[in-house]
Amino acid sequence: MSQSFYLNAIGTVRKTDEKAWIEIFNKYGDALLGLDGFSHIYVFYWFDQNDSPEKRKTLQVHPRKEPGNPLTGVFATHSPRRPNLIALTLCKIESIVGNIIHIEEIDAYDGSPVIDIKCYIPSADPDAGVRVPDWV
Amino acid sequence: MSQSFYLNAIGTVRKTDEKAWIEIFNKYGDALLGLDGFSHIYVFYWFDQNDSPEKRKTLQVHPRKEPGNPLTGVFATHSPRRPNLIALTLCKIESIVGNIIHIEEIDAYDGSPVIDIKCYIPSADPDAGVRVPDWV
Repeated sequence: MSQSFYLNAIGTVRKTDEKAWIEIFNKYGDALLGLDGFSHIYVFYWFDQNDSPEKRKTLQVHPRKEPGNPLTGVFATHSPRRPNLIALTLCKIESIVGNIIHIEEIDAYDGSPVIDIKCYIPSADPDAGVRVPDWV
Repeated sequence: MSQSFYLNAIGTVRKTDEKAWIEIFNKYGDALLGLDGFSHIYVFYWFDQNDSPEKRKTLQVHPRKEPGNPLTGVFATHSPRRPNLIALTLCKIESIVGNIIHIEEIDAYDGSPVIDIKCYIPSADPDAGVRVPDWV
């Protein structure tokens, strides 16, 4: 079984040395209604710099590009090399003006295509019993 | 500017009344190396039941299908109707056997296409100052 799906960029990451913001394309502006009630958002963007068939075949990496970290499957990391180039990062909203979401900072390159925004609801996170490996 | 990207399913959500698991396709099995060091994963799946051009045009909803909740942009919700049908959910791992990730539970339909798995690292979450609107 092999299923494929398509994504359209819904906006773009913008950043300078001092500021960061998300530009949502006009056609998706109505999808921002009420977002100002939240302090934080999940930003989903596309690791477009790795969008080649070769890089998308990467299944194992040394996390954080540290050779001392054990070889690890990409599904056990947040590596930007992975079969589907989905990036997930949590951002703090500073303000929303029109279709622009000003954010405190973001670990993405300027120009990265944004593919989704979701509100951050903390109660969805586990409060106890979280376990991670040593390299983290 | 209009950019499109493609995703390939990397596995499938499976669930019965009593159990839930993720089947990762064989070709991606190597990407699971080291995942057993984590207690929780983010599962990204595709809201395939809403994969029509019409439903993907939905930009505003009443959250949780409650008419009493204010009309809200889909980017301020986790609605399954949105331009790109990415679902994000956090799951607790029970065990990993071969390419099967047994999980405690998942808010997805049996058969949903899985598009990514990422490890859960709690330090990435804000510890204070989170704000949400009343409908949450």
